[in-house]
Amino acid sequence: MNQDYIKPDNWSVIEEGFDAERVKSSESLFSIGNGAMGQRANFEESYSGHTFQGSYIAGIYYPDKTKVGWWKNGYPEYFAKVLNAPNWIGIDIEINGENFDLAQCTSVKNFRRELNMKQGWYNRSFEATLQNGTEVSVNVNRFLSLELDEVGVINYEITPLNKDAKIVYKPYIDAGVHNEDANWEEKFWEPLDVKHDGNEGFVTARTFKTHFTVTTFMQNTLLKNGDELALSPENVSANNEKIQFVYTVNAAQGEVASIHKIGGYTVSMNHDDTYIAAQKTIEKALEKGYEQLFDDQSNAWAKIWEMSDITIDGDTKAQQGIRFNIFQLNQTYSGKDSRLNIGPKGFTGEKYGGSTYWDTEAYCIPFYMATKDQQVARNLLTYRYNQLDKAIENAAKLGFTNGAALYPMVTMNGEECHNEWEITFEEIHRNGAIAFAIYNYYRFTGDYSYIPEKGLEVLIGIARFWHQRASYSTHKNQFMILGVTGPNEYENNVNNNWYTNYIAKWCIDYTMEQIGKIRADYPSDFSRIMSKVKLDDAEIAHWKQVADKMYFPFSEEHDVYLQQDGFLDKDLVKVSDLDKSQRPINQKWSWDRILRSPYIKQADVLQGFYFFEDHFSKEQLEKHFDFYEPFTVHESSLSPCVHSIQAAVLGKMDMAYTFYLRTSRLDLDDYNKEVEEGCHITSMAGTWMSIVEGFGGMRVKDNQLHFEPRIPEQWEGYSFKINFRNQVLKVSVSEGETKFNIEGNTPLVVFVNGRQVTVEPDSLVIV
Amino acid sequence: MNQDYIKPDNWSVIEEGFDAERVKSSESLFSIGNGAMGQRANFEESYSGHTFQGSYIAGIYYPDKTKVGWWKNGYPEYFAKVLNAPNWIGIDIEINGENFDLAQCTSVKNFRRELNMKQGWYNRSFEATLQNGTEVSVNVNRFLSLELDEVGVINYEITPLNKDAKIVYKPYIDAGVHNEDANWEEKFWEPLDVKHDGNEGFVTARTFKTHFTVTTFMQNTLLKNGDELALSPENVSANNEKIQFVYTVNAAQGEVASIHKIGGYTVSMNHDDTYIAAQKTIEKALEKGYEQLFDDQSNAWAKIWEMSDITIDGDTKAQQGIRFNIFQLNQTYSGKDSRLNIGPKGFTGEKYGGSTYWDTEAYCIPFYMATKDQQVARNLLTYRYNQLDKAIENAAKLGFTNGAALYPMVTMNGEECHNEWEITFEEIHRNGAIAFAIYNYYRFTGDYSYIPEKGLEVLIGIARFWHQRASYSTHKNQFMILGVTGPNEYENNVNNNWYTNYIAKWCIDYTMEQIGKIRADYPSDFSRIMSKVKLDDAEIAHWKQVADKMYFPFSEEHDVYLQQDGFLDKDLVKVSDLDKSQRPINQKWSWDRILRSPYIKQADVLQGFYFFEDHFSKEQLEKHFDFYEPFTVHESSLSPCVHSIQAAVLGKMDMAYTFYLRTSRLDLDDYNKEVEEGCHITSMAGTWMSIVEGFGGMRVKDNQLHFEPRIPEQWEGYSFKINFRNQVLKVSVSEGETKFNIEGNTPLVVFVNGRQVTVEPDSLVIV
Repeated sequence: MNQDYIKPDNWSVIEEGFDAERVKSSESLFSIGNGAMGQRANFEESYSGHTFQGSYIAGIYYPDKTKVGWWKNGYPEYFAKVLNAPNWIGIDIEINGENFDLAQCTSVKNFRRELNMKQGWYNRSFEATLQNGTEVSVNVNRFLSLELDEVGVINYEITPLNKDAKIVYKPYIDAGVHNEDANWEEKFWEPLDVKHDGNEGFVTARTFKTHFTVTTFMQNTLLKNGDELALSPENVSANNEKIQFVYTVNAAQGEVASIHKIGGYTVSMNHDDTYIAAQKTIEKALEKGYEQLFDDQSNAWAKIWEMSDITIDGDTKAQQGIRFNIFQLNQTYSGKDSRLNIGPKGFTGEKYGGSTYWDTEAYCIPFYMATKDQQVARNLLTYRYNQLDKAIENAAKLGFTNGAALYPMVTMNGEECHNEWEITFEEIHRNGAIAFAIYNYYRFTGDYSYIPEKGLEVLIGIARFWHQRASYSTHKNQFMILGVTGPNEYENNVNNNWYTNYIAKWCIDYTMEQIGKIRADYPSDFSRIMSKVKLDDAEIAHWKQVADKMYFPFSEEHDVYLQQDGFLDKDLVKVSDLDKSQRPINQKWSWDRILRSPYIKQADVLQGFYFFEDHFSKEQLEKHFDFYEPFTVHESSLSPCVHSIQAAVLGKMDMAYTFYLRTSRLDLDDYNKEVEEGCHITSMAGTWMSIVEGFGGMRVKDNQLHFEPRIPEQWEGYSFKINFRNQVLKVSVSEGETKFNIEGNTPLVVFVNGRQVTVEPDSLVIV
Repeated sequence: MNQDYIKPDNWSVIEEGFDAERVKSSESLFSIGNGAMGQRANFEESYSGHTFQGSYIAGIYYPDKTKVGWWKNGYPEYFAKVLNAPNWIGIDIEINGENFDLAQCTSVKNFRRELNMKQGWYNRSFEATLQNGTEVSVNVNRFLSLELDEVGVINYEITPLNKDAKIVYKPYIDAGVHNEDANWEEKFWEPLDVKHDGNEGFVTARTFKTHFTVTTFMQNTLLKNGDELALSPENVSANNEKIQFVYTVNAAQGEVASIHKIGGYTVSMNHDDTYIAAQKTIEKALEKGYEQLFDDQSNAWAKIWEMSDITIDGDTKAQQGIRFNIFQLNQTYSGKDSRLNIGPKGFTGEKYGGSTYWDTEAYCIPFYMATKDQQVARNLLTYRYNQLDKAIENAAKLGFTNGAALYPMVTMNGEECHNEWEITFEEIHRNGAIAFAIYNYYRFTGDYSYIPEKGLEVLIGIARFWHQRASYSTHKNQFMILGVTGPNEYENNVNNNWYTNYIAKWCIDYTMEQIGKIRADYPSDFSRIMSKVKLDDAEIAHWKQVADKMYFPFSEEHDVYLQQDGFLDKDLVKVSDLDKSQRPINQKWSWDRILRSPYIKQADVLQGFYFFEDHFSKEQLEKHFDFYEPFTVHESSLSPCVHSIQAAVLGKMDMAYTFYLRTSRLDLDDYNKEVEEGCHITSMAGTWMSIVEGFGGMRVKDNQLHFEPRIPEQWEGYSFKINFRNQVLKVSVSEGETKFNIEGNTPLVVFVNGRQVTVEPDSLVIV
């Protein structure tokens, strides 16, 4: 554990005391978001210390020109990345003539941040003494409205403590921002127009190249002791990308001078005229008023928690961890908009471009399926369906033909963004997760309609890719997949990564099965699809050959599938025998040394055992877990959750608990010393899985819910809810006892440790 | 063949006709150099068309900050690259008030370039009509003196053809130059001082970071009809990095107005005060005068050709090709200075940073050994000896200990420059070539003294590296070398590249053998070295284990060594069955597709068979040649020469001839459509080998020269000379007959097709 300053609390993330060294980390941890926009916990007032400014708008990206050392054919020219959006939070402040800046104050006392996850707001409070001797108490509240998702609200209060103060509030909005992560230090925003009207200001800017138009707006209300002051700006200064108002409030010692700033974005993805939309949005927000917006916010979060909360009794850190994870997932993606997806850092940083990875399909979908309406997961699938053409183009760039689809490793709009050959061209297993998600969606929701409507076309593109990508080895008389990088990115360009080969075969088999089913049961869909994709039985027969003769590396000696052909040739020293000074190896070792080591970054063969658990016996799982886990360094945020689930399945509860803590508090405790770059949003869904699927043992088999509840000895109890096919089941587990509770009027049959249990509405079933 | 405009000629490279599209290619092909400096064939007068400016000074480099897409631990921070040096050739010209620029002239007639390889000069002549109607005839001669290697000489003559002309010559020198190949568009030169005195001008500048100080100088003499005019500059304009003189010559129609410009560089590598050195250098040049300098040049080149010429009768293109190769090698490296080496582009371009690659040891040393004093090859070995500490540092960065040395893939000063993990960290076979060159030097020259003096330390560092780099495979009970890139860079990160494993084992065995020999025969050297490198018998025993138990991938079915473990798993479609539209694959295919294909960029297993020919039977060679050549696409300039040699050995003379033409005219015919970036200097030494070792069948075995002469049916005869242990042997081959001729007074015993022949001085031996 690398940082330990977050106070344990069941419902809030709390920091106490001001430490300039922690500012960037806290800016990540106290980020807020509402699915449509996000905001790092930057200060409103000016701050001359180290800070990482970040405001983000969902779906707004910039194709930054790629930077490489050595160009390879097939590299994409652009890396679409999340944009640091115009600043809407800024409020310069003068107190008795001095610019207010925490880095310049002579003292800062009782500094406290709270991210209240229950109600969805962020608060910062402190007492500070300026260089001119004025002592003030400051209290700032901020939230991004879930109700009006283009609106953010700030209540900034200053109380002079030791003398009267002339307080000048200078709220501004500014499109003159830049990305920290820009390859060529280009400007991403082109200013278009600056307008103001009374207390309202508007800056309209457009992204270069992608031409997203955004109006950033603000509306300011000044208050003294809570009473509105009928103030208009004394002065308005503007250039072509920034506008700033000036208001002066004279506050006697002990009086509270405050400003309500409403701000946010209206974007051309949603509006024809973003300026008019911004005016209307301000109007709507003002109609409600600050108090109502705040109440709405609490209520909206209460609704989210009602469905998605997980309680843990007797372990505050574990409780705080899981709630932080659930909170961030809900801040990042609401599921309303199938144009959006879940970036690995959500709205908390720029890294990884804010783009879509296979994380969505492999880790995030189960969370959204079980805690939201099934439309949300369907939207995530539809996102890929809508990008199928681009995936086919992408495959064509790499020499594939006939509608073969390779989904990108990293993308915003469906085009590949990444530019390391061993990843971009070779980490092709991502295609498998995208197919698996279609299967997983149907398995969980029972909604088959997605497959004939959209899913089958995706499956066919993927099956075609695998068929072409496999090559025939004459001397083994089997099909192989050469030159790949598996989920374990600590091996590159290997031959016959077991996970990749396995999911490739599965994709083909599953696609053939769906073709058969749709041919039989959905004849009109079938003919529509077949005429579109031009697939005939001869081609399917070729696929089948590949699937039937797929090669899987296997060790007779160890009785395990081998991660790749050369795995046993490695010097197999276990992680436990590796000197601690060598860890993390990704910081200590050169890349070649990592590659030829046996160390595994994240679940690889075990990822396959996770997806296809029902294809293997528990004995096989245990054998593979015991073989691979000792070589696994878990240097990916996506690793501990899968291992936690499998350790739980295997009854290794100590390991399961350790992995759980690591995944759930990865960011709060900053295990990887990098939280200042943003939080690991997608792995947070893995945390959820490690409770529900790991400890709770939830599975869906043959359209029915199964549980094998287990509880770590550190906990007194835990509970979670599952939205299973429009029935909400609450599961509460304590030592030796599991309670089930169903909402609504219909009973639900579940299986607990294989035993059938009928959960009747309005009655607690105890097992 | 992609370009075909060079006129066939036995001794010159000739271009006729002006074509702006060819300017950059010709700038490479007509480059001149003298081992200490080089100059692309840029025009002296201003030229507004496309051009690639290049003046280079041997050993002067700049550590340009690395550019990568994704940083990997162990990457070097800097890429040392050859610098475009200050311009010393520039002469702006005004004719009757109009700036003279070939791109602006209304007509250019009889444009002709000649690179006279016999005498070492470059000439350009043409008639041009300016926009103002003045018609002039221009004749420009340029050479870089071999005698005074800091001096370049230009004779620029203008004759007005249709009217009198006021000709203003404005010669300049300019340190305000930039590299085309600069990662961050930084300035590389810091101007220090500008001076002038009469007709002499001086610009002193220093490279940033490396702090090489260079004075660029010029001295100008104006002439009319060959008579010197006692002119001083009418005007001198200067800023902090450039100085320009103005001279006016009025020439009546038919009169020749010319300027002799002497220019060049004095550098802090060789002088304490570069300005004073420049003054002295001008003085020396003026003492000689233009005619004498020119005669010296012819004589110096005559001496070079006397020793290194290869004649080919009956095939002008082949003759021109080999002479161009020999000429360029001599322009690039004279062997006088052990601080210098042979960049892949010599002084003809910036690409590959002008740095040292394994090309030197694998391809260049045989040429310099056989055509120069043996000190030249020894200097090339010493270059690596002097960089041993850096090679040890480089290995330490990658986690190796105890004095293990990994020589860099690309270097100027011994530090690694390259930054692709699959090359930088994994193309480690380079270490083997460096050891092999030590063996090869001794084999050819018989000079063992280098090994106890310097070579053994290098060998020990290399043996230590291989010992540590190999890893033990429990399940095979053998040592393996995992995660490497062999000479065939179309496979990356493979396991057990046969060439690498073979040369690694050989390095250890050879080092142990030398340790034994030096222990026995050079006891004082032995104890000096051992106390320096702290090597004991226990460590040697560990090495031996690795060498004795080295694993070599082998196919029983094909009875060949496998290029790497997975080679047979590939889809083995021969190049001849590959659609021509797919070639060259490095331009048509994405990297992953190349990697999983069976296609070989350059000799790999066959490179090993070339180095260690005597370890294998001719039958084995044939089997391996027949197995691998059909998969070889020869997309490296270093590939055809080795194949030409082996095809000749195997009596496949048609193939041998085709490969020979490809290697010898690679640049003249611009096979790879890239000659505008510079010529492939290091592969030119391979061309030499393909005649001497291929057709001539020259080998050194047990301290004696062996020949197996063969002649392509396209040739009437060919001849070459060999400096074998200070005896110069001339070999002349025609169909069915080989003549030997020895200089000096001592007879020499050679073997021809296994038969012993004594070559007596002053008598022609015909076999």
